[in-house]
Amino acid sequence: MAQASYKSPGLSPGTLVYVGDKTAEATRISVVDFTNDDIEEASDVPIDDLQMFLKRDSVTWITVSGIQDVDVIEDIGKLCGLHPLILEDVVNTNHRPKMDAFDDYFFLILKLPLLDSSDGSLALEHICMVVGKGFIISFEEMEGEIFTPIRDRLWHSKGRIRRYGADYLAYALIDMVVDHYFEVLEEVGEEIETIQESVLDHPEPGILSEIQNLRHKLVLLRKSIWPQREVLSSLLRGESEMIDEKILLYYQDVYDHVIQVADTVETNRDQMSGILEIYISSVSIKMNEVMKVLTIIATLFIPLTFLAGVYGMNFKYMPELEWHYSYPLFWGMVLACLCAMLIWFKRNRWL
Amino acid sequence: MAQASYKSPGLSPGTLVYVGDKTAEATRISVVDFTNDDIEEASDVPIDDLQMFLKRDSVTWITVSGIQDVDVIEDIGKLCGLHPLILEDVVNTNHRPKMDAFDDYFFLILKLPLLDSSDGSLALEHICMVVGKGFIISFEEMEGEIFTPIRDRLWHSKGRIRRYGADYLAYALIDMVVDHYFEVLEEVGEEIETIQESVLDHPEPGILSEIQNLRHKLVLLRKSIWPQREVLSSLLRGESEMIDEKILLYYQDVYDHVIQVADTVETNRDQMSGILEIYISSVSIKMNEVMKVLTIIATLFIPLTFLAGVYGMNFKYMPELEWHYSYPLFWGMVLACLCAMLIWFKRNRWL
Amino acid sequence: MAQASYKSPGLSPGTLVYVGDKTAEATRISVVDFTNDDIEEASDVPIDDLQMFLKRDSVTWITVSGIQDVDVIEDIGKLCGLHPLILEDVVNTNHRPKMDAFDDYFFLILKLPLLDSSDGSLALEHICMVVGKGFIISFEEMEGEIFTPIRDRLWHSKGRIRRYGADYLAYALIDMVVDHYFEVLEEVGEEIETIQESVLDHPEPGILSEIQNLRHKLVLLRKSIWPQREVLSSLLRGESEMIDEKILLYYQDVYDHVIQVADTVETNRDQMSGILEIYISSVSIKMNEVMKVLTIIATLFIPLTFLAGVYGMNFKYMPELEWHYSYPLFWGMVLACLCAMLIWFKRNRWL
Amino acid sequence: MAQASYKSPGLSPGTLVYVGDKTAEATRISVVDFTNDDIEEASDVPIDDLQMFLKRDSVTWITVSGIQDVDVIEDIGKLCGLHPLILEDVVNTNHRPKMDAFDDYFFLILKLPLLDSSDGSLALEHICMVVGKGFIISFEEMEGEIFTPIRDRLWHSKGRIRRYGADYLAYALIDMVVDHYFEVLEEVGEEIETIQESVLDHPEPGILSEIQNLRHKLVLLRKSIWPQREVLSSLLRGESEMIDEKILLYYQDVYDHVIQVADTVETNRDQMSGILEIYISSVSIKMNEVMKVLTIIATLFIPLTFLAGVYGMNFKYMPELEWHYSYPLFWGMVLACLCAMLIWFKRNRWL
Amino acid sequence: MAQASYKSPGLSPGTLVYVGDKTAEATRISVVDFTNDDIEEASDVPIDDLQMFLKRDSVTWITVSGIQDVDVIEDIGKLCGLHPLILEDVVNTNHRPKMDAFDDYFFLILKLPLLDSSDGSLALEHICMVVGKGFIISFEEMEGEIFTPIRDRLWHSKGRIRRYGADYLAYALIDMVVDHYFEVLEEVGEEIETIQESVLDHPEPGILSEIQNLRHKLVLLRKSIWPQREVLSSLLRGESEMIDEKILLYYQDVYDHVIQVADTVETNRDQMSGILEIYISSVSIKMNEVMKVLTIIATLFIPLTFLAGVYGMNFKYMPELEWHYSYPLFWGMVLACLCAMLIWFKRNRWL
Repeated sequence: MAQASYKSPGLSPGTLVYVGDKTAEATRISVVDFTNDDIEEASDVPIDDLQMFLKRDSVTWITVSGIQDVDVIEDIGKLCGLHPLILEDVVNTNHRPKMDAFDDYFFLILKLPLLDSSDGSLALEHICMVVGKGFIISFEEMEGEIFTPIRDRLWHSKGRIRRYGADYLAYALIDMVVDHYFEVLEEVGEEIETIQESVLDHPEPGILSEIQNLRHKLVLLRKSIWPQREVLSSLLRGESEMIDEKILLYYQDVYDHVIQVADTVETNRDQMSGILEIYISSVSIKMNEVMKVLTIIATLFIPLTFLAGVYGMNFKYMPELEWHYSYPLFWGMVLACLCAMLIWFKRNRWL
Repeated sequence: MAQASYKSPGLSPGTLVYVGDKTAEATRISVVDFTNDDIEEASDVPIDDLQMFLKRDSVTWITVSGIQDVDVIEDIGKLCGLHPLILEDVVNTNHRPKMDAFDDYFFLILKLPLLDSSDGSLALEHICMVVGKGFIISFEEMEGEIFTPIRDRLWHSKGRIRRYGADYLAYALIDMVVDHYFEVLEEVGEEIETIQESVLDHPEPGILSEIQNLRHKLVLLRKSIWPQREVLSSLLRGESEMIDEKILLYYQDVYDHVIQVADTVETNRDQMSGILEIYISSVSIKMNEVMKVLTIIATLFIPLTFLAGVYGMNFKYMPELEWHYSYPLFWGMVLACLCAMLIWFKRNRWL
Repeated sequence: MAQASYKSPGLSPGTLVYVGDKTAEATRISVVDFTNDDIEEASDVPIDDLQMFLKRDSVTWITVSGIQDVDVIEDIGKLCGLHPLILEDVVNTNHRPKMDAFDDYFFLILKLPLLDSSDGSLALEHICMVVGKGFIISFEEMEGEIFTPIRDRLWHSKGRIRRYGADYLAYALIDMVVDHYFEVLEEVGEEIETIQESVLDHPEPGILSEIQNLRHKLVLLRKSIWPQREVLSSLLRGESEMIDEKILLYYQDVYDHVIQVADTVETNRDQMSGILEIYISSVSIKMNEVMKVLTIIATLFIPLTFLAGVYGMNFKYMPELEWHYSYPLFWGMVLACLCAMLIWFKRNRWL
Repeated sequence: MAQASYKSPGLSPGTLVYVGDKTAEATRISVVDFTNDDIEEASDVPIDDLQMFLKRDSVTWITVSGIQDVDVIEDIGKLCGLHPLILEDVVNTNHRPKMDAFDDYFFLILKLPLLDSSDGSLALEHICMVVGKGFIISFEEMEGEIFTPIRDRLWHSKGRIRRYGADYLAYALIDMVVDHYFEVLEEVGEEIETIQESVLDHPEPGILSEIQNLRHKLVLLRKSIWPQREVLSSLLRGESEMIDEKILLYYQDVYDHVIQVADTVETNRDQMSGILEIYISSVSIKMNEVMKVLTIIATLFIPLTFLAGVYGMNFKYMPELEWHYSYPLFWGMVLACLCAMLIWFKRNRWL
Repeated sequence: MAQASYKSPGLSPGTLVYVGDKTAEATRISVVDFTNDDIEEASDVPIDDLQMFLKRDSVTWITVSGIQDVDVIEDIGKLCGLHPLILEDVVNTNHRPKMDAFDDYFFLILKLPLLDSSDGSLALEHICMVVGKGFIISFEEMEGEIFTPIRDRLWHSKGRIRRYGADYLAYALIDMVVDHYFEVLEEVGEEIETIQESVLDHPEPGILSEIQNLRHKLVLLRKSIWPQREVLSSLLRGESEMIDEKILLYYQDVYDHVIQVADTVETNRDQMSGILEIYISSVSIKMNEVMKVLTIIATLFIPLTFLAGVYGMNFKYMPELEWHYSYPLFWGMVLACLCAMLIWFKRNRWL
C-alpha cells in the first residue's frame, strides 16, 4: 500500500501522519542523564520511566529513534507536556527546518545530510529537538550512529559539555549536524572538480545527467541550509530564553559555520551553471570543427568530381578527349585547384 | 455575449461585476451553526433568515456558493453590514489573495488550486471569507465539495474545532486550502520527474509544450501562494484583533506550511529551467552526433568517388587504363584511403 | 525643427521645457464645480476666472488639456500658488510617476497606457494632478475623452463621488487610470497567447520582431506601473494630510489593483522569456530534423554513387564487367546496403 | 613611464597619488564671488589670495581645474582646512561617487559622463565638491567648459541662484551633472535603436562588437549613477546640516532625475540583452535557412546522380542500355522523383 | 598522509584543527612595540616574554607567523586571555572573514589575495587580528613580507601611525590588505581585456578554459570581499568600543575602498558573462559562415555533377550524344546555371 506523503486536505491539524518512506522500525527510547560528576545511560527505556529522569536535578537527554509509530510519539508528547503541533512536525519528515519558542522549551527541526556511499545519492535525515531547562528530547528517523560521538564525549570528557546545561548540549548537537554539511560539501566539491576537468578535456553526453544530479544535490543542500540559518539567527536574537547569555557565543560560532556552508553551496551552484555553459559551448565548438572538416573535404572534391564527370561524358565531338596531353593537364588542373583552395582555407584560419 | 474580464475604466468603484467564466449557477446559501454542545445545519437558507443565525450566541458559518448573481451577493453584504469594496472583491474572481482588517471582522481572499483530472490543467478556485466574532461567511465560485471534510469534522468531533470560536474554524478552512497545494504539488512533482527522465533518455520535440505547460502551472501556483504568505504574515502580526492569542500558534503552523509550499514551488521552477537547459543541450548533442555520421560518410566516400570518376574519363591517352593491374591497384588505394581516414577519426575521438 | 527631449544641462531648474512630441495644441481649461446638491460645468474658461471657482465652498475640478504652451501653464501655476518645480514636471512628459506632498496640496504624476488601435503600439499619456482641500487641477497632454466617464458620473450620480470631497474624486481618477492598465493587459495577454501557440505550432522568423515588440510593451508597462505603486504606497502611509481617514480605504483598494497589474506584468514578462526560449529550442529542433534528412539521404546514396562510379571506370582489365550476372548482383548489393542502413537508422531512433 | 593606477599597498593613507591618465596640465584656480547684489570673477588666483575671498560675507565658488599637481592640491586643502582623506579622494580619479559629511562642510564626488564625439567612447569626468556655509570648492580633472553655463547664469540672472546660498549653488551644479546623463542616454538610446533595427533586418557579425561596446557604456553609466543616487539620498536624509530645509525640495527634484536616469539605464540594459538574444536567434534562424537550401539541393540531386551513375556503368550485360526508350524513360523517372520530393518538402513546410 | 580539510563531525568545538595545505613551518613570534617617541622590534620572541611587552604602557604589535603548530597557538591564546573559539578560527584557514567583538578586544578574520606570479593562480592568505587597547596580535599562515611596509612606516615616520593607538594601526593593516585587492583587480582587468579582444578577433577553443579560470578567480575575490564589507560595516556601526571616534573616519575610508573593490568585482563578473555570450555567438557565427561556404559549393556543383553524369550514361539511343554542338552547349548550360545561382545567392545576401 502506498504511503501518503502529505496529510490529506481536511484532516484535523495535530493529526499525526508519518510521511517518510523508511520501512517501519520500532520506536526506541534511550536516555543519557548527567551532572558534572555523574553520568548514567539507559537504552530501551519504557515511556513511563521518562518522568523519573526528567524530575531529577540533572541534564537529561532523551533520544527517540524511529518515529513511524505515531502512537508512541503521541504518548511521549503527552508525558513531556509538548504541544500537539510539535508532534505533528516531528513525524512530518518533509517539514523544513524551523524554530518554535514556547515558554518552557524551544523546538528545533534540523536536516542532517547523508551521502549514500553506494550510489552517491544524498538523503536529508529529519532531526527534531526539544530543548528545555535541564532536558533535551531528540528525535531521529532511524536508530543510527549519528549522535554517538556526542554520547562518547559526554562519557569521556569532563569539559564544558558536562559543566554547562542543556543549552550547551543542544549547541553540541547542532554543531555536529552542521559539521556533516562540511563533509558532504567536500565530496560534492570533488565531484564538481572531476566534472569540470572532463568537460574541458573530453565532453561526453553522459556528463549531462551527472551535472543534473549534482545540481539536484546542491538544490537539496541549499533548501535545507537556508532555513537552518534562520533558525540559528532567531536563536541568536534571543527569541527563546532557554539559552544562557554565556552560551550564545557558541551559537554565534555555529551560525558562522552555517553561513559558510550556505556560501559554499551558492558558490558551487554558480560553478555548476558555469560548467553547463562551458559544456554547451564546447559541444558547439566540437560541432564547428566537425563541420569544418566536412566543408573542407566537400569543397575540395565536389568541383573536382564535377570535372571528372565532364570528361566521362560520351559526346561524340569533345575535342579535349583526343588531345595527347589532356590527362596530365587534367591532373595539373586538379592540383592547382587543390592548392588554391588550401591557400584560401589557410587565409580564413580554417586550417 | 462575451463576458467582460475586468470592469471597464470609469465604472464606479463598488460596482459589482462578476468576471469569472463559470456558467451561471444559482446562488445557494447554507449555514452551520454550532456551540460546544449543539450543532445545526441548514441548506438553501433564505437571505432573511441569516440574521436569526447571526444573532445567536453560537458560532455561525454561512457558506455562499455561486457568486454570479451579484444582486444576491449585494443583499447578503448589506444584511451582514459588509463594506461595499469587499463585495466588489468577492465577485472579482481575478483578485489576488489579500487580507483586509476592519473593526468587527477581517476579510480574506484565498486561491484553492484544483487539478482537472481529465486534461491535467490547473484551475484556481476563488475563495473569500469574512471572519468576525462568532461568525464566518465563506464564498465559493461553484457549489462544491470543497468544505465538506470540515463540515464532517464539525459533526463528528467534539475537539478543538467545536470548543474554540470562529477564529479556529477560519484556521481550519485556511489549513484545508493550503493542504490542497500539497496535493497539487505532489502531482506536479511527479510530472517533473517523468519529464526529466524522458529528457535525459529520449528527448522528443513534443516535450517542449509539456515543459511550457508545467512552467505555466508553476507560475500560477507561485502567483497565488506568495500573496497568501503575506496574508498569513499580516494575520500573525496581529493586524486583526479577531484572532485569539492562543489560536495564533495554529496560524503560525499554517504559515509554516505556506512557506514550505512557496519553497517547493521555487525549487520546482529551478528544476524546470534546469530541465529546459538539459533538453536544449541534448538536442544539440544529438545534432552533433548526426553531423558526425554525415561528415564521416562524406569524408570517406567523396574523395573515392572522385577517384572513380577520374578513371571513368574518356581521354584517349590515359596510360593507367591499359595497365593490367590497375583495377586491383585501385581497390588497394581505396582500402588504404579508408584505413587512413578511420585511424584519423579514431584519433580525433569521433568514433 | 527638432524638439529637445531633455532640457539642456545648465538651464535653470524651474525652466519650463515641453519635451513631448505631440504637435502643438492650444491649451484649454475646463472646470467642473460641484457640491452634493449643485453641479456646474464650464469649458474654455479664461485663466482669470479660475480664482472665482476656487474661492467657492465647493469641490472644483479644473482640467487643463494641452500642455505645450508653457506660458499658460506658468500662469495657471502662479494663480493657484503652485511650486515652480511642479510646473517643470507637468510639462516634462518624460517624467516618471511620483508624489510630492506640500502643505496645502499634493502633486501626482501618473501614466495612462493607451493602445493605438491602428498599429497596436503602446503610448503612455502623461497625467498630472494637484489635489488640495476642495480642488483638483488635472493636466493632460491632449484634449481627450479620458476623463469623460468620471464627468458623466458626477452629473448622473449623487453617490459617494458627489458626497465626498476632492480626495475621493482624486481616487476616482486614479482608479480610472489603473483600470486602463487592465484593458491594455488583457490585449497584451491575448497577443502573448497567439504568439505562444504559433511558436509551438509553426515557428517562423517573423515571430522574433513580434516577441521583441511585446517585450518592449511590457517593459514600458512595468516602468510606469512600479513607480505608481510607490506613489500609492506613500499616499497610504499618510505622507499627505489631504486624504481623509475614511477615504484611505478606497486608496487601499486601488493600491491592491496596482499590485495586481504589477504582478500580471511580471508574469507576462516571465512568459515572454519562456516563449523566446521555447522558440530558440524549436528552431534548433527543426534544424536537427533538417540535418537528419540530409544525413540520411547522403549516407544512403554517397556510398552507392561511389559503387556506380567504380563500375563506370574504363580500365581495360576489370573482370566484373564481363560477368553475366554482374548487373543484377550490383542491384542486389545496393538493396542490401540500403536495408542495412535503414535498420541502423531505426536503431538510432533517426526514423 | 607607466603611471600607477592605484596607490601601492602599504603606502600611508592620506598620501596623495594621482591615478588618472590625463596628461599633466597645470592646476588653475578661478573664483566667482557673489552676493545678491554684487558679483566678482577672477581667474588664475594665487593660492594665498583664496583666504581673502573665503573670509568675505558672500558666497565664494572656487574652481580648481587640473588635479595632477598633488602638491598644489595639498596646499589648497591645508589652507581651507580640509581633511587629508578628502584630498586623497580628490586626486584618486577612480573613486566612486560618495558623500562625506563633516561638521563645517560636506564633500561630494560625482561623475560627469562625456561622449567623445570622434569615436563615440564614453569617459567619466571626476568631479569633486566641498560645500560649506558660504563657499564651494569644486575640482575638475581638466580645465573645461563644464561649469560655464552656471557661471553665465550667475552673471546674467538675479534669480534664486544669486539669492540663495552655497547649498543652492551646489544643487545647480549637481543638477547640471545629472542633465549630462540625459544627454548621453539620448545618444545611447539612438544607438540602441539603430542596432535593434539592423539586428532584425540584416544581422552581421560586426554587430557583436557594437553590442559589446554599448553594453560597456551602460555598465559604466550604471556604475556611476547608482552611487550618486545614494549620495543624494543621504543628503535628503539630512546627513549634512549644511543644506537649508527650504532648499531640500530642489535636492528632492534632482534626486527624482537621478532615479529616472537609473531607471532608463536599467531599461536599456534589459533591451541590450534582449537584442543579443534576438541576434543569436536570428543567426541560428539564418543557419537553419542555409541548411534547408543545402538539404533540399542535396536531397533532390544525390539520388539522381546515383541513378545517372548506374547507367554510366560499363557492365557488358545491362539490358536497359539497349532499349530504345531508355533515355526518355530515365528523364521521366528523374522528373517523377523531383516532383515527389518537392511535394514532400512542401508538406514539411520547407518551401 | 592526507590532511583533513574540515574538523570531523562530533569533535568538541574549540578543538584546534589546522586545515590549510601549507607545509609545516615553525611558528615564529615577532614583536614591534612603540610609543610616539620610542620604537623597539624583536623577532623570535619566546612566548613567555610576550606578557612583558603587553604590560608596558605602549602599543604592542605581536605578529605570529606559521599557524600549523596548534599547541603554540593555544599557548599564545591562553597567555593573552583569548577565547578558545577565536583560536579555533585562527587555525581554520577556510573560515570566511568575520568580526567578533569582545569586552576587551575585537577579533578580525581577513583574506589577503595573492597572485602566484608563475601560473597566475590566485591564493587567499588567511589573516587574523586581535585588536585591544594598546595591543594587536596578528596571525599569518606563512612568514611573509606582507606586513613589512607597515613595519617600515612605523620605523621611519612619526606621523599618525605612531601618534595614534592600536586602532589606527589596525586600520593601517586593513588598508594594506584592501590595497592588495586593487593590485589583483588590475591584473584581472588586464586579463579580461586580453580575452575580450581575442574573443572578438579570433575565437579559439582554448579560450574556454581561460574564461573558466578568470571566472573562478572572480568568484574567489567576491566570496572574500563581501564578508569583509560586513566586517567593516559592523566596525563602523560601533559594535566594538575599541575604536576611537576620531579614528572611525579612517575606517569609513577603507570601507569606501572595500565597496569599490566589490563594485569592480561585480562589474568584472558582468563583463565575463558578456564575453562568454559573445564567444558563443561568434562560434555560431563562424559555423554559419562555414555552412554557407559548404552550401554554396554544394548547391553550385551537385546539379552540374548530375548533368555530367547524365551525359556519361551508356544508353544506346541518346540523341544529344551525336549532335555536333552538344559539348559547347553543355558548357553553356553549366555557365548559365552558375550565373543564376550566384545571382540568387547575392539576392539572399549570402555573398
